[in-house]
Amino acid sequence: SRSLRLAVIPGDGIGQEVVAEGLKVLGAALPADVKVEATEYDLGARRYHRTGETLPDSVLEELKGHDAILLGAIGDPSVPSGVLERGLLLKLRFAFDHHINLRPGKLFPGVKSPLAGEPEIDFVVVREGTEGPYVGNGGTLRTGTEHEVATEVSLNTAYGIERVVRDAYRRADARPRKKLTLVHKNNVLVHAGHLWTRIFQQVGQEFPEVTTDYLHVDAATIFFVTQPERFDVIVTDNLFGDILTDLAAAVTGGIGLAASGNINPSGDFPSMFEPVHGSAPDIAGQGKADPTATVLSVAMLLEHLGFTAEAAKVEAAVAADLAERAGVRSTSQVGDALVARVSG
Amino acid sequence: SRSLRLAVIPGDGIGQEVVAEGLKVLGAALPADVKVEATEYDLGARRYHRTGETLPDSVLEELKGHDAILLGAIGDPSVPSGVLERGLLLKLRFAFDHHINLRPGKLFPGVKSPLAGEPEIDFVVVREGTEGPYVGNGGTLRTGTEHEVATEVSLNTAYGIERVVRDAYRRADARPRKKLTLVHKNNVLVHAGHLWTRIFQQVGQEFPEVTTDYLHVDAATIFFVTQPERFDVIVTDNLFGDILTDLAAAVTGGIGLAASGNINPSGDFPSMFEPVHGSAPDIAGQGKADPTATVLSVAMLLEHLGFTAEAAKVEAAVAADLAERAGVRSTSQVGDALVARVSG
Ligand SMILES: CC(C)[C@H](C(=O)O)[C@@H](O)C(=O)O
Ligand SMILES: CC(C)[C@H](C(=O)O)[C@@H](O)C(=O)O
Repeated sequence: SRSLRLAVIPGDGIGQEVVAEGLKVLGAALPADVKVEATEYDLGARRYHRTGETLPDSVLEELKGHDAILLGAIGDPSVPSGVLERGLLLKLRFAFDHHINLRPGKLFPGVKSPLAGEPEIDFVVVREGTEGPYVGNGGTLRTGTEHEVATEVSLNTAYGIERVVRDAYRRADARPRKKLTLVHKNNVLVHAGHLWTRIFQQVGQEFPEVTTDYLHVDAATIFFVTQPERFDVIVTDNLFGDILTDLAAAVTGGIGLAASGNINPSGDFPSMFEPVHGSAPDIAGQGKADPTATVLSVAMLLEHLGFTAEAAKVEAAVAADLAERAGVRSTSQVGDALVARVSG
Repeated sequence: SRSLRLAVIPGDGIGQEVVAEGLKVLGAALPADVKVEATEYDLGARRYHRTGETLPDSVLEELKGHDAILLGAIGDPSVPSGVLERGLLLKLRFAFDHHINLRPGKLFPGVKSPLAGEPEIDFVVVREGTEGPYVGNGGTLRTGTEHEVATEVSLNTAYGIERVVRDAYRRADARPRKKLTLVHKNNVLVHAGHLWTRIFQQVGQEFPEVTTDYLHVDAATIFFVTQPERFDVIVTDNLFGDILTDLAAAVTGGIGLAASGNINPSGDFPSMFEPVHGSAPDIAGQGKADPTATVLSVAMLLEHLGFTAEAAKVEAAVAADLAERAGVRSTSQVGDALVARVSG
């Protein structure tokens, strides 16, 4: 019998609840001879308040020994903005070189979009995950005074861009429409923008069947709401990807359904899968949270580990559940319904 | 008789056509004793191809002698991305210290939004116009090689943030709902984000009647499509403002209707008014472009110069025209209809 060593970080708020359902579905989907060895790590706001730690080095070391990480949600209003984000979530993405931040934007049949006219939406955003304005390179001068100056430096490397761009081309090449859109703001952020554009064109020569286009990030937001069906695969920088994928979640039925993978394709470090939504402290502990985004993240985890058929089964279960969804169900009712479909 | 010294930069593509209608409406709206002395400046792609110039110093000097600038649209595919944007548009914004980039997001009755359920949308975005990632501070190393590194530096000053934040509070205070939302990404861009947040809170003490809240830029895009009615006044940085205002335009009926003002409230330099849309070379010269965004920009110009009643008249004319709009009309037909309403 094989085993899947899974690190689980439930985190804060609804993170606990949705991860529990994700694990149920994972167990139901895997072949009978695969055992999940799940180790739970207590990280997030409670740990921070108790010990002042966000991600101790020893935990970071332990996490390395796993095949993948499933994360619920991190964050609480009691912790100053940025502490957990940078000390835990981004630290993991950077330490494990999660350069492919993968976020599908798919409107499942039966799901209501805030957009009129029931558009067909089925794209995937390949967001760069380890560079750009997220590198934490910046500072302040005359801090706290009326003469304060604050900088944020966006760092972009040919190496970092090329690997995410090539990954995006591969994904586009494997999809029926074979279309790849680069989103940036190369008319203003000319240095980074030209580098992205040059590499996008260069790597494109390896993929003659992929049709390409370019959009400024501001224009892209317009098309997300007026013509979302025009997108197939999108590749973009870390910050633009952050913004666009929340918008993508909104137009495909809300962040309750949006999955993501923080992927290191080399396998040198474990990849991490997490719903796009936050910890939603206002509804935590009430069994109200929709675990679907976590379950879809589990599907991405399965796909990443080579369980392709199992991933498809989970996604099909979600699709069927959404198509028939009626009435209000609790977190675990949704999870149980998905388990039943996956097992059935 | 008084005179209004207006610099007109029609620019490229549909810029020419829409500016012509804007000027007609301006003439019709002004009191009879005010003469418009319009001077046209040939800037944009044609000038660039002819002379290599984007904005000669002599022209910049001349522009200073005007009460305001009306700009159509700048840009053409024949010019490398960034050349005209940075050499002309942004150069003007920076040279004339246009720190208040004002962009209303209003869904006029009769206008179709891509959002379902006919939401009520009436907010205004106060976008910082002279700082942030737009300062052009960045560079490349090992340019053109596989080891290239490119940086973009976002510069933020207490001085620059305070003036735009105070302006936004004033605008919020003058509106019935008195609500101001700060949009940033202070959990990741902590240096700039904390500076924005600190000043936002500090200046807020001068405006006890204004209700405030804070949203990360990614969350803000969600609310733009799921709950746009929650916004009244939004204040944000240059790049986030760029992205949010295109999205705002999209949900309020498209960039064909979105106006903007690049304002220097001190009056030391002329402020500049322009539609948010681009030069749309694909439909240029066909008399198809909707001049409404330019006409609404003219209303903002009137307001800025103290012609408050006249500004209201122009906006009312646009509202009435949009409410009754039926069938396809040419650029000048729309302009003439608005002139008739303003004069009537
Ligand atoms: C919480 C935050 C640091 C994070 C990000 O900005 O990447 C989140 O918004 C996301 O998209 O996963
Ligand atoms: C053309 C471009 C430089 C400009 C900007 O980014 O500000 C435009 O998008 C705008 O919003 O006015």
